[in-house]
Amino acid sequence: MPHQMNAAQLQAFLTRDFGQVADDFRVERVDDQGLTLRLMVAARHLRPGDTVSGPAMFGLADVAMYLAILAQLGPVALAVTTNCSIDFMRKPEAGCDLLAQARVLKLGRVLAVGDVMLYSEGKPDPVARASLTYSIPPKR
Amino acid sequence: MPHQMNAAQLQAFLTRDFGQVADDFRVERVDDQGLTLRLMVAARHLRPGDTVSGPAMFGLADVAMYLAILAQLGPVALAVTTNCSIDFMRKPEAGCDLLAQARVLKLGRVLAVGDVMLYSEGKPDPVARASLTYSIPPKR
Amino acid sequence: MPHQMNAAQLQAFLTRDFGQVADDFRVERVDDQGLTLRLMVAARHLRPGDTVSGPAMFGLADVAMYLAILAQLGPVALAVTTNCSIDFMRKPEAGCDLLAQARVLKLGRVLAVGDVMLYSEGKPDPVARASLTYSIPPKR
Amino acid sequence: MPHQMNAAQLQAFLTRDFGQVADDFRVERVDDQGLTLRLMVAARHLRPGDTVSGPAMFGLADVAMYLAILAQLGPVALAVTTNCSIDFMRKPEAGCDLLAQARVLKLGRVLAVGDVMLYSEGKPDPVARASLTYSIPPKR
Repeated sequence: MPHQMNAAQLQAFLTRDFGQVADDFRVERVDDQGLTLRLMVAARHLRPGDTVSGPAMFGLADVAMYLAILAQLGPVALAVTTNCSIDFMRKPEAGCDLLAQARVLKLGRVLAVGDVMLYSEGKPDPVARASLTYSIPPKR
Repeated sequence: MPHQMNAAQLQAFLTRDFGQVADDFRVERVDDQGLTLRLMVAARHLRPGDTVSGPAMFGLADVAMYLAILAQLGPVALAVTTNCSIDFMRKPEAGCDLLAQARVLKLGRVLAVGDVMLYSEGKPDPVARASLTYSIPPKR
Repeated sequence: MPHQMNAAQLQAFLTRDFGQVADDFRVERVDDQGLTLRLMVAARHLRPGDTVSGPAMFGLADVAMYLAILAQLGPVALAVTTNCSIDFMRKPEAGCDLLAQARVLKLGRVLAVGDVMLYSEGKPDPVARASLTYSIPPKR
Repeated sequence: MPHQMNAAQLQAFLTRDFGQVADDFRVERVDDQGLTLRLMVAARHLRPGDTVSGPAMFGLADVAMYLAILAQLGPVALAVTTNCSIDFMRKPEAGCDLLAQARVLKLGRVLAVGDVMLYSEGKPDPVARASLTYSIPPKR
């Protein structure tokens, strides 16, 4: 599906509507299938063992897919996460940003579904994968 | 399975090993099936719309199940989350703590599985449910 | 939520609309929270190692939750499974029926969510657990 | 990871160890990342509404990932499914085979993780996606 918002527009949306976390994230790429979102890993995202915390990875996957859906629906939408299934496969490296590759698999009338792969920047093997479902409100 | 750590011991473990987030949580109850963990909701857990953020709910479910497994294994263990499937069902109320009811369903040699129900304090209907799997390291 | 169909009505619905599999299942109990469904395990449900196959357990969880939603919505509904997350925890015993305890956790306008525990009859520990989401069509 | 079994070897394994269902499936392609498995859809896989049943799709995803792991581990392994999260996104067409594209994302010491996309043959949009985890027994 053609995307209706580019990286700069998505970043501006994030800043305006999610100011609390907008500085954590940078939209790196948007195309018709999905996008890449960077988590600029800082001390607040780490946990003992010098690795990125589970909630920080969950949050990255969730924001990435949310923006990927928004890119296709346009800025009027307000999707709500209804399910996330996430597999943690490898320990992310500390001192290294995380990159999320989000892909929209279905954009229906009431539900959107997609999946996300998370990588430590520069590493070939994913640290985590997630699939997410969003409920799309009636009026759009 | 009989539990080997009580609420005070679990709270002390949290303070020592997860100092960064220990102040967010309070162990309310432990028995042979599981435990109740409170998220003391503060401004940093909220997101626009005056509700508790997804990562905060994910974190609550994850810490609750982690401690429930620890309560049964004893303090030597260091389990690692491998999967979480979480359903967000209702919007949590802001200005209201969240309570997680965690239940251990299987404690095997290499894997532990459990589920968690999340409630806004004082409300009968769950705001979310999660099932989680942990990998248990060989030497314990 | 009060249930609108009893065990006999659900069984009749199964026979009429799902004749192909209706003989596999028996509705054992219905109340306002959910129901118990029995899989009468036969040779066609087994796989090597003398255990019940994954698809047979998945099917049991899915039919149990479908009927539990139907019990609350009434016979006009036609819900569609959109997600299932299932954990296989213990090997079911062959020569032993499976019992599914299904519980409706949310019955919304467009989505229903519930969970199911599967037991080998007479055993205290669950063999599997599943959470399922259904899309509810507009006109009901 | 390099694969150690080709399509013919996997098909022979299926026939020998899973004779009951081997005729349903045909291994179409194997490479170092994963494989493609065909479900030859027959009347027994359908359900009312002239579509492929949920258990048949679950079974296809499970067998596809099982064989993809086997292709990498070699024929000595006996992996056990511990978790599957499956999203049903579109109604499969009756009178049309299903193709599963399975991909191994992690092959660890005790756990293997992968995902599967399911397509009605000749259609570009997936009918379902699944992520699966397998426990790998100690001696291999």
